[in-house]
Amino acid sequence: MSTQDLIIHGETGPQRLIGYVLDVSNSAGDGGARCWLDLNDSHLNRHGVLHGGIATTMLDSASGATGSMSVDPTGRAPFLTISLTTQFIAPARRGRVTATGLITGGGRSTLFIAARLEAQDGTLIATSNGVFRRVPTERLP
Amino acid sequence: MSTQDLIIHGETGPQRLIGYVLDVSNSAGDGGARCWLDLNDSHLNRHGVLHGGIATTMLDSASGATGSMSVDPTGRAPFLTISLTTQFIAPARRGRVTATGLITGGGRSTLFIAARLEAQDGTLIATSNGVFRRVPTERLP
Amino acid sequence: MSTQDLIIHGETGPQRLIGYVLDVSNSAGDGGARCWLDLNDSHLNRHGVLHGGIATTMLDSASGATGSMSVDPTGRAPFLTISLTTQFIAPARRGRVTATGLITGGGRSTLFIAARLEAQDGTLIATSNGVFRRVPTERLP
Amino acid sequence: MSTQDLIIHGETGPQRLIGYVLDVSNSAGDGGARCWLDLNDSHLNRHGVLHGGIATTMLDSASGATGSMSVDPTGRAPFLTISLTTQFIAPARRGRVTATGLITGGGRSTLFIAARLEAQDGTLIATSNGVFRRVPTERLP
Repeated sequence: MSTQDLIIHGETGPQRLIGYVLDVSNSAGDGGARCWLDLNDSHLNRHGVLHGGIATTMLDSASGATGSMSVDPTGRAPFLTISLTTQFIAPARRGRVTATGLITGGGRSTLFIAARLEAQDGTLIATSNGVFRRVPTERLP
Repeated sequence: MSTQDLIIHGETGPQRLIGYVLDVSNSAGDGGARCWLDLNDSHLNRHGVLHGGIATTMLDSASGATGSMSVDPTGRAPFLTISLTTQFIAPARRGRVTATGLITGGGRSTLFIAARLEAQDGTLIATSNGVFRRVPTERLP
Repeated sequence: MSTQDLIIHGETGPQRLIGYVLDVSNSAGDGGARCWLDLNDSHLNRHGVLHGGIATTMLDSASGATGSMSVDPTGRAPFLTISLTTQFIAPARRGRVTATGLITGGGRSTLFIAARLEAQDGTLIATSNGVFRRVPTERLP
Repeated sequence: MSTQDLIIHGETGPQRLIGYVLDVSNSAGDGGARCWLDLNDSHLNRHGVLHGGIATTMLDSASGATGSMSVDPTGRAPFLTISLTTQFIAPARRGRVTATGLITGGGRSTLFIAARLEAQDGTLIATSNGVFRRVPTERLP
């Protein structure tokens, strides 16, 4: 598997739709997946700021991929979100925003994963905390 | 304002992108906004089920619009999401899913709003609970 | 097992300390455990209102017992809280407050359980939504 | 105000009841309040581990006091909890547990405050993320 395979573009419908990029290369060495998006009007709400749903999609994607990376170097092992809480700290209006996941605890099947969404200048846009579960292969649809 | 103006299609970038419809007509008489989406591959994750981020976008949109409806009959008064917790109860794979908002408490500026996302057969897909804040007109971007 | 055994007083340290009563009799027929407390100064915070931690303790206890009731008619089968979100809707200052649990979804081992904390006059004080897991007997300490 | 006044014992009913100590001295220099408790049977649930409600009480207290410290060096300015999400990462059975608050964002009246509850050996027991609001003096009961 080359490094290029670990920068994921458009592998799922929502990813193609929204346009975020998923980085499971662990190039930062912290075990966290990155999910970034270059904002355009398609991502902004009625008030001209990043839509909470899009922000949550990025936090959720970075978190799930971080879970995958803990058991699968390709970052594709399926993890389902059981519960996710997002705090919307500051608005984002333009430029690139990046979500980074961090495993805070858990065991074989359930993981607690936090994520931070930051603007290019380091401003904290949103944080999330979730419960994720590894999907046993036999239960996949 | 005609009833047609209260069924909102494609007014924001994320709405056009994802394709959900927002109903602020209060035709059910319960004060809750509806947000529905006919699922296609663009909305499904790697496991073939509704992506958690898209589900959250719908719950968030229905909740915010429910807040708006409480102060503005056109359902457009801006409310910001402060915090949102989503519980992912069951997978959705196809058909129409509908989110409905419900104000559970609050005061002049802050509202607690719950929402349920259901499949056409009534299966509960996800629930959310959030804190929302009315945006004073002078603070809008 | 008599009905009296299903109104639980002081079975655990925190219950004796705080003084709440747990009702797993399902006398309301809705499958929900009740947890009630007659407020006194020991339960109020610096502002003279019910402390958020005590409110959460009651919501958590009612939720866990509701999970237990789904698999054990005595309401004692152990369930662990994985994640819990509480929304503090209105203050409570005196009188009896009662938390009631409701299972919203889940499977064999994991349950989604919501709870409402209400004052005697029906005022909604707080709501919670949590993820709970049944503890396999062999994993008990 | 002496340093001794900034280690708070038994100032409120719940604090006397449960026995936790609140440290608003900022001796660590990170702006975070500490809330610690030496566990005994009064704090353990049916499974012999720290009750989720007691854990949440500590996280909530450390968070609220951290908010207070941001506007009042005595750490007593009242902050109300609007919403709080707790993730229960690992069990605690004995010894001292300590919660530490951290402001992650916010403005004049609303703060986002995270907290961590740790055992003496540094094991992460639980984390919380909440929305807190400063109480205007004129609205106090």
